[in-house]
Formats: sequence, structure tokens, C-alpha cells
Amino acid sequence: MLTRIDHIGIACRDLDTTVAFYRATYGFEVHHTEVNEEQGVREAMLRINGTDDGGATWIQLLEPIREDSPVATWLAKNGEGVHHIAFGTADVDGDAREIGARGVRVLYDEPRRGSMDSRITFLHPKDCHGVLTELVTSASAAAEDPPTA
Amino acid sequence: MLTRIDHIGIACRDLDTTVAFYRATYGFEVHHTEVNEEQGVREAMLRINGTDDGGATWIQLLEPIREDSPVATWLAKNGEGVHHIAFGTADVDGDAREIGARGVRVLYDEPRRGSMDSRITFLHPKDCHGVLTELVTSASAAAEDPPTA
Repeated sequence: MLTRIDHIGIACRDLDTTVAFYRATYGFEVHHTEVNEEQGVREAMLRINGTDDGGATWIQLLEPIREDSPVATWLAKNGEGVHHIAFGTADVDGDAREIGARGVRVLYDEPRRGSMDSRITFLHPKDCHGVLTELVTSASAAAEDPPTA
Repeated sequence: MLTRIDHIGIACRDLDTTVAFYRATYGFEVHHTEVNEEQGVREAMLRINGTDDGGATWIQLLEPIREDSPVATWLAKNGEGVHHIAFGTADVDGDAREIGARGVRVLYDEPRRGSMDSRITFLHPKDCHGVLTELVTSASAAAEDPPTA
């Protein structure tokens, strides 16, 4: 069950400049940064608020680290802006399976590693009214409530 | 001070079809629908989670009701997808003033009426790294904590 909006993923050309904008304009601070080699991005997570399922909602700023990463391709086509939205769940495996069974294309056979050791998968935007949609189980949620095999 | 992600605004061509997708795929239910004549949209609010500032985070689905509405123009250019993001605050007037003073263009001289009798304004996407950004004070927050003149 999807219990929160986990984050909004925003593609940017320069992470440091964009982080500086969010800090100077809104006062949002960076909670975490990392490079995700598989996704081909350098990213910063800004924590905006806590949520009533025990999680949080974040702004995720994404800068491509190579020309052939999906985010680089997306930026070349669209320019900077909202790249995807993500719903949080305690069980990304189960939810991906159920949603896939409803006819929505799930992009990964198995969830992959996302920000802060979360497990993530994506739904095809053409099946979701144009919205690239991520499902995410945070590392803490997974520890509390591991998906059954 | 911006204390939550209030909603993600998603532009769609047909509200009923898109509401049906969100219900069938994720189980999200419509909490509220309305027509905003000034914005030129028919909209549905899906409540996703509560937030630790006493508010909530929503998906806002937007269908244009006339060809010359901003959402219709946006849809013609971009197709369906994420149209804007919105940060919640107890004081949209004060925050808009402060953010404007930092050099970000605020699109309205005074906040206007948004969903569920909220008060809203927008920041120019070109000043926000490509993201059309809304600031919103919900009707309940305004009643509890009215902005000073």
C-alpha cells in the first residue's frame, strides 16, 4: 500500500547551483548527498516534512554524471524540471507486483537501490498519464517490515 | 516558512479517466472536486498522507475547461504530466513577499483562491530551475494563524 508522497525528483544541470537556490530561496537544507552510478546521477536529498506513516517527504535534486544516463537524456529533451514523483510503501516488491498485474508496465524486474539505501522501481510514464512514477521502500521501513520472499 | 509539500499538480486531458486510473492502480480516493473558473480548470484532490505540520499532501489532478487556460496551453506543449509542485505555509503573503525580495518573480500581486478555499500564488518557473512552484496556505491554516496585514 502506498502511504505517502516520498519525494519529487527534479532534474537539474548543476547540482551545487540548484542546492544553493533551494537553500537561499526557501531555507531547505541538504540532508544527504550521494552518487548513484547505476542511475548515472549525483543527487541531493532535502527533507521537507515528516509524514503520518512514520516516513518523510523530500525534494530530490538530480544531476546527470554521464551523457547516456536517463536523466541526461531527459534533460536534453525537456530542460530542467520535475523528472518523476515517488510514492512510499513498506513493500515495494508486493506493490510493484500488484500494480504490474493491473496492466501498468514496471520498469525493473526486481527493485534496485535508490537514495539512502532505499529499494525502488519505476512505472512507465505512458501507462501513468505522462508521469514517471517511482515506488520506494526506505531502508528504515524495510528493516522494520521486510517484504516476504 | 514552507513546512510541507502540499501537493503535486498533474495536468490531464480527461479528469474522470485520470481519477479512475489513480483509484484502480493505487487505491487513492477523491477527497474533493471543484471547478476553478479563474484558473480555467476542473480538478480533483486525492489525499495521500498527513504531514507533521498538521496539514496533508495531495495529488491534484487538473483538466482544462477552456482552450485559453494556462493548463490547456501547457498540455498542448508538454502533454500530460506534472504541471507544478506546491509548498504549504501558514503565511503565503509573508513568504511570497520574502521570496520575491530574493529576486524570484512572484506571478500574482496578491494571493488568489486555490483548491478548497486555500490562498495561493506561483513563482516563475524560469527563476526556479524549470519548476512551476506554488505557495499555498490552506483554509484551515489561515483560520488558525491569519497573516498579519
